[in-house]
Amino acid sequence: MFIFIVMRMFFIFHTFFLLSMHLNAQKNIPVPNKKQLAWQQAELGVVFHYDLHVFDGKQYGQASNRLTPVADHNIFNPGQLNTEQWVLAAKAAGAKFAIITATHETGFALYQSDVNPYCMKALKWRDGKGDIIREFVDACRKHDIKPGIYVGIRWNALLGVHDFKVDGMGKMREERQAFYNKMVEGMVKELCTNYGELFEIWFDGGAGDTAMGAPNVLPIVQKYQPNCLFYWSAQLSEARWGGSETGTVGYPCWSTFPYPSMMSSKYPEILKNDFHLAKHGDSLGAYYLPAMADAPLRGNKGRHEWFWEPGDEDHLFPVDALVNMYEKSVGRNATLILGLTPDTAGLVPAPDLARLKEFGDAVAGKYGKPLASADEKNEIVFKSSQQIRAVVIGEDISAGQRVKKFRVQALVGNKWVNLFEGSSIGNKYIGVLPSPLQTRKLRLIIEDAFAPPLIRIFSVY
Amino acid sequence: MFIFIVMRMFFIFHTFFLLSMHLNAQKNIPVPNKKQLAWQQAELGVVFHYDLHVFDGKQYGQASNRLTPVADHNIFNPGQLNTEQWVLAAKAAGAKFAIITATHETGFALYQSDVNPYCMKALKWRDGKGDIIREFVDACRKHDIKPGIYVGIRWNALLGVHDFKVDGMGKMREERQAFYNKMVEGMVKELCTNYGELFEIWFDGGAGDTAMGAPNVLPIVQKYQPNCLFYWSAQLSEARWGGSETGTVGYPCWSTFPYPSMMSSKYPEILKNDFHLAKHGDSLGAYYLPAMADAPLRGNKGRHEWFWEPGDEDHLFPVDALVNMYEKSVGRNATLILGLTPDTAGLVPAPDLARLKEFGDAVAGKYGKPLASADEKNEIVFKSSQQIRAVVIGEDISAGQRVKKFRVQALVGNKWVNLFEGSSIGNKYIGVLPSPLQTRKLRLIIEDAFAPPLIRIFSVY
Repeated sequence: MFIFIVMRMFFIFHTFFLLSMHLNAQKNIPVPNKKQLAWQQAELGVVFHYDLHVFDGKQYGQASNRLTPVADHNIFNPGQLNTEQWVLAAKAAGAKFAIITATHETGFALYQSDVNPYCMKALKWRDGKGDIIREFVDACRKHDIKPGIYVGIRWNALLGVHDFKVDGMGKMREERQAFYNKMVEGMVKELCTNYGELFEIWFDGGAGDTAMGAPNVLPIVQKYQPNCLFYWSAQLSEARWGGSETGTVGYPCWSTFPYPSMMSSKYPEILKNDFHLAKHGDSLGAYYLPAMADAPLRGNKGRHEWFWEPGDEDHLFPVDALVNMYEKSVGRNATLILGLTPDTAGLVPAPDLARLKEFGDAVAGKYGKPLASADEKNEIVFKSSQQIRAVVIGEDISAGQRVKKFRVQALVGNKWVNLFEGSSIGNKYIGVLPSPLQTRKLRLIIEDAFAPPLIRIFSVY
Repeated sequence: MFIFIVMRMFFIFHTFFLLSMHLNAQKNIPVPNKKQLAWQQAELGVVFHYDLHVFDGKQYGQASNRLTPVADHNIFNPGQLNTEQWVLAAKAAGAKFAIITATHETGFALYQSDVNPYCMKALKWRDGKGDIIREFVDACRKHDIKPGIYVGIRWNALLGVHDFKVDGMGKMREERQAFYNKMVEGMVKELCTNYGELFEIWFDGGAGDTAMGAPNVLPIVQKYQPNCLFYWSAQLSEARWGGSETGTVGYPCWSTFPYPSMMSSKYPEILKNDFHLAKHGDSLGAYYLPAMADAPLRGNKGRHEWFWEPGDEDHLFPVDALVNMYEKSVGRNATLILGLTPDTAGLVPAPDLARLKEFGDAVAGKYGKPLASADEKNEIVFKSSQQIRAVVIGEDISAGQRVKKFRVQALVGNKWVNLFEGSSIGNKYIGVLPSPLQTRKLRLIIEDAFAPPLIRIFSVY
């Protein structure tokens, strides 16, 4: 192995890359498509979970919810619904995009569907004319947040669909499966054609495997939403789950992956070792599948609530935990998506809203304005010694993840001290020092790379 | 056995009945409740079948329709819907009541349901505000026809319900069954509370057996519709099916029956011998379950269509067949219910309407105005010899079916000739002569009875 410092060691650089590109001739560096690029660069999004059972006054139990239809859909009655308030809450946290559950596991659709009768048309609320998806995307666009849609098709308690499969036997099961698949495809077409351009479509638990009889939704999304990130089916994942719902990913977390989909029966390895591959990716993977870290805001102290429940405010993550989450997701080359859930009034509850603002303010305070950024030599030189807490590095990922090994050093006294050593950088690497440090000079050393590295940012805080 | 002529043989009469009532002391003569009385006296009704698949342009196949949800409910679009035209068609036929399928086997509800999302709320038609049940009952009341409602709960293709049972396995099946039963009970409550007083509620294939897990709809109907004939469940039948869909019943057709329900696993005898018991009843039966004869108007030449299909007009029963049906149903103490089906425009088709009017006119022409009716001695005496074609006899059935054996005689020359010999009379007995006969005197002889007979009518045509 050899060490070089970008730009500084110009000749070695060229020599290396002639060599390196030769060595890596067989490896085409996977690059993001424009959807993936936008999604990674957005860094932070939210997903709003909202469904009938928010209104049942009971604790949400996913397992039973999947099996038991909601007794009375007319409990759904958000009297003060205000999707602008939702979007402003997301914005206060710093989110650049916001996703909403058009359907979740009840099967109920939060819009005016012509193919799924179990939708807002069935409600007394707003005389059956309500369309939360419409209000949501309108609010997003008004406030410059990119709207996305989450679609649950894997489960449907009303119609008896469990893990994509219509419950039952024989001819009736087959016929109802065919009907269900067509209905789902119809819903995806509605969602892809009636609400303008979408940033992401998120299939809850995936859209399944057409080879195993799941609906074929990918061509519909590709036809009607060419700029929408597709997440995901056994055919394709334009992003991948980061292997946990902790809001963090592992380190390293490569955007590259050995398979075109994040999960499929064809790739049993993905399930192994507690989703190790999802958490870390594969530096040699031939496919570009950037990672998502997701967690519900109400996930603290032993709770993990994607859906609003009464008296659950104590389980909001504290600000520190959220900032830590941000650093271990966005700061590890993943996109963080926080789960929010409006209450029965139709509002993000005040404590949640306050926490989101605190979180947004904390991230902005900590990473909004660097003390300094590097010059073209990837060096940062202060006029006088400064106290630093963290560094942020980012590649120009439009050309793929190129850095394979790097090191950040600080001049302490007259000695270069290693602050961080790592492998993956990707869209963003955040290195947080265990304690503040005095220095007047830092440098980023790229020790190995798959191709000439393109460092977009190297800043210190 | 002894013979007597009512009123004429006053003393014998009294002697007989003291004896007879003694003989029959153990037999409580079953009598109709006021709902059954009104239903039998109505004699002729219609049932309108209307559902999503009327609009699919295909031939209706019941077996596949039960298994296969309709692909697109928005095919339902009756552009010229006119329920007054329906009701006037029924009235032209002479019907006194009219029933409509609120739901049939698709599971789709022709009204604004708050509990079943698969209803008119789901339609684009009339912007989801259509309510055919409302329009239907309003039209009935406007034109002095009693409205009734037909509810299909035994089958539901959308939700996967087959013979009351939700398809599937394990916990999901159980939970969906519980949901379905509650939904059905909710629908029955809606139908029993939102549309005023109903004449009959007809559960398609019955409302099942609560002991076998079927919904418990009987108490709902009894609570909210005390004047509505309940047809039927394993718990109770206030009328019974007449054993075929030919529009006729057997002779005799007693209103009495050995069981409180027309069908139940407890009474396997009912299924035997091609529904012999349904067709004939049982003169010694302890329960009052008058018979219904039903047939679709489009049931001729090898067809049997309850639902409209394109190009099916050739299969309308001819007038003669309908009159014959009337004589073998109403004329045998049953209530005849003819099946009508509006087309995709929302109208009873012109040929069906014309045929109904022809039928109504034919019955009115044949039985509207008797040549003469009997005096209190059950004798008809013409001033001069008349040509006769038929007789009509009726008991006052409010006191039950009392006549056990009777004979109608005519004086031909100087000799009494037997025209008709029979057992059951009930609400109406029509005796049609094979060829016209000249006579100037007729008499009705009650040869045996369960109690003092109460002859309401004895007329000649």
